[in-house]
This record gives sequence, structure tokens and C-alpha cells, in this order.
Amino acid sequence: MTRWKLILEWDGAPFMGWQRQDHGPSVQAALERAARAMTGEEVTAHAAGRTDAGVHALGMAAHIGLARELTAHRLREGLNALLRPDPVAVLAAEAVPDDWHARFSCVGRRYLYRIANRRAPLTLERGRAWRIGLPLDVGAMQAAAGHLVGHHDFTTFRSVNCQSDSPVKTLDRLEVSQVGEEVHVHAAARSFLHHQVRSMVGCLALVGQGQWTPEQMKAALEARDRAALGLNAPAEGLYFVEAVYPA
Amino acid sequence: MTRWKLILEWDGAPFMGWQRQDHGPSVQAALERAARAMTGEEVTAHAAGRTDAGVHALGMAAHIGLARELTAHRLREGLNALLRPDPVAVLAAEAVPDDWHARFSCVGRRYLYRIANRRAPLTLERGRAWRIGLPLDVGAMQAAAGHLVGHHDFTTFRSVNCQSDSPVKTLDRLEVSQVGEEVHVHAAARSFLHHQVRSMVGCLALVGQGQWTPEQMKAALEARDRAALGLNAPAEGLYFVEAVYPA
Repeated sequence: MTRWKLILEWDGAPFMGWQRQDHGPSVQAALERAARAMTGEEVTAHAAGRTDAGVHALGMAAHIGLARELTAHRLREGLNALLRPDPVAVLAAEAVPDDWHARFSCVGRRYLYRIANRRAPLTLERGRAWRIGLPLDVGAMQAAAGHLVGHHDFTTFRSVNCQSDSPVKTLDRLEVSQVGEEVHVHAAARSFLHHQVRSMVGCLALVGQGQWTPEQMKAALEARDRAALGLNAPAEGLYFVEAVYPA
Repeated sequence: MTRWKLILEWDGAPFMGWQRQDHGPSVQAALERAARAMTGEEVTAHAAGRTDAGVHALGMAAHIGLARELTAHRLREGLNALLRPDPVAVLAAEAVPDDWHARFSCVGRRYLYRIANRRAPLTLERGRAWRIGLPLDVGAMQAAAGHLVGHHDFTTFRSVNCQSDSPVKTLDRLEVSQVGEEVHVHAAARSFLHHQVRSMVGCLALVGQGQWTPEQMKAALEARDRAALGLNAPAEGLYFVEAVYPA
């Protein structure tokens, strides 16, 4: 039995998210089906993080175990051929020790949130960014983001469905930058609460539009109350970028 | 009657191209339908260039004439609302003199061709770039591109359906650059022959993969013979970027 680390990219639009669901397609089910078609083995895939419906991945880490002997090249090419036409691709495959776990070994997660700041509807980027028509004040958003970085109780930015033991997390990075007509928010932490990135970005968008001051972001955090949340940003702008593991 | 210059963005995937067709959807028909729905007027739209099925636009220039009095803001917002769900957006609208013509006044056209140079199938960029699995030699492609810049007979790179009076054109710019895992080709000229950019990019890809030397690109140009063409690149990687007009 070989344990394989896989780096996955996907377009989240057609999926209910990473996790296998009874009521619709999932990335996990697509990957497991491809692995089974390739080897005849029953396979369970594990990922560094579960993602919501519509959320994209540029570099999600996952693992599967296979009895059949394969090279990394063969596995990657075979899975990619069998994943068609699902918009999921295996970017890399690597054999890892049996105690390596995509979720439990992961010590860092990075997300990108893309806001398209323009009046016109999206065409090529439809479903790939959150369009906001009013001009955003990126400086104010940066100031507001600064209040969230660090070790805090993030209850305000946590879904009621969150299964984490504690609402206390350390946010290592929350950076807002202008990239052409887009505003990008980069977030990094050891782990995130359910909906945390989308909730933080929703409130950053309120600040950017002048509906909140940066200080109101601080007050929302300190309220430790989901009712203090301003807005949850839509899934379609969110990208899981990278899972980090000890060297 | 006011003549309006429009800057359009579209996802080419669902369209037969710019030009109105009997057998499928076109960007021209979508725009004319939206303008008619807004004003009740019969409208004919003209664009700086016709594009093939599947070709995208980041900034195509077009014009329409409308009797109804409107502000540029109102026109843009109204057209965008009525263009839904077609993936076409009006980025800008501006009143222009009656003798301004999107096609005949245009003195420069810019295209971008995106090649995704990677083994894995495309997911988020599917239909938005040409995937080439073998590593491309960008330096060789740059050398080959240099042979095409200038005033030449481009018969080799011209579709048999091209309606241009002459195969002689001046190619002002053909630049190849690496952008992350993508290879971008920027092309600029006063005007292009039908399929010229895709034909040039197809041959550049042969050079990048080592199937042609840069000198073979020169020989293909000098052959002035469509049979000397190596390869026509697919439409899905091509973007009309900008139409240039006298200041």
C-alpha cells in the first residue's frame, strides 16, 4: 500500500464542495471514482480542508492509499485522463510516508479571495470573482484587515455550522491589494473556522464601500457574536491556494 | 441620431464569433437585440474586427446609432442589464461624431494569445487558453517571432477564406513572454489577415516544442504559400485586446 500526496486544482462551480454528498457532485467523489477506475480499488480521499460549494482550488493537498504499484507520473496522468470531463486536475503526485495525512499533517493554509471591482457584469471571470460595482477604498480595507491579524476569538466570523472545537485561531496574514481592476485578499493561518475567510472578506467589502469604518471591524471582532457579522462574501471568489506541511 | 462607441468584453465560448449568423448565436446579434430591447429601434452594430467562433474579447470597439436620447451611463447600464445572461459586457460607452466608424476609423489592433504550458488538463482556464504539455523554449519562440515582424506578404499565415484585398501587412509587434506557467504572445498591427494571429502562434508553438527551428519560420514566411503553414492554433486562446483610433 502506497500513500500518495496529490496537489489538486479545480473549478468549484459544478461541485457541492470537496466532501462527498448524497445530493450532488463533489470533488472527493470525482477523485475517488477516478482512482477506483484506474486501480479497481476502493479508495477514500482526504484533503487538507473541506471547501464549500462553488469554492475553487489552485493547489489543494489530498492523499489516497493504493495497493497497485505505480509511478507518480503514471498516477497523475491516469487520474487526469479519468477525471475528464470534471474540471479537476492533479497537478502533482508524490509518494509519502504512511503516517503523512493531508489534513492532520497540515500546518498552514492559504486562501485568495478575488473581488472584481467594476460596474460591468463579468464575462470571462463570471463565477471566478465577486463583482462589486462601487469603488473600493483599498487603504481602508487594509487598515481594517490589520485589526483581524493575530490570535483572536473569531466567533463573529464563524458559521453556525462550524465544527471546530474552539473559535480561537491565529490569523497569520490578511493582506488586501489592488491588482488591475481586482482587489485581492490573501489570508493565511494554521487553520480557519468554517466561513471565516468569506466572513472576513464580506466585512472588508463593507469597509471598502464606506459602510463600515476600519474601527467597526475591530468592534465586530471584539463582539464575539455572529450577529455582529456584516456580510458573508459569496463562495465564487474564494480559492484554496496552498496547504503547508513541515519540511 | 447619436453614434455611440462601445468597448465590449466577451467570453467567446458560446458564440459563433462577432458576426451575425443564421446558424448560431453571435455577439453582434446579442448586442443588437439588447439595443433594440432598450430603445425599440432597429440597430446595426459594427465592430473594429470580426472574430472567429470561440475567440474572446477584452476590449473590442464597436459602434451603434440610436435616435433615443440617452446618457452614456444609462446606455451602458441598460445594455448590460439586457445582455444577461449572455457573457457580453459593455465596459464603456461614449458619444462619437457621425463619421466615426469602429472598423474604418481603426488604425491599430492588438491581440493576446494565451498558451498554458503544463501537463495537467485545464480546469479554471478551460476554454480560455491553449494547453501545450511539452515544455516550450520561449527563447526560440522569441527568435522566430522576430522573423515575422515588419512589412511582409503573409500569405502563409492567411486563411483560404480571407477577404482582404492584399496579403501584404505590416506586423508592428509580435512578442513572446513567460507569465507564470503560461506563455503569452502579444501581436499588434494596423490590421490582420483572417487567421493570421492563430497561424503565427501555431507555428511559434512548433518552434517552442523544437519541431521547427526559428529559421524555418522565416522560410515559411518567405514561401508565401498556405501549404507551408505548420499549424493553426485553436480559437480558445485568442483575445482581441484593443482597437486603436487617432487621438
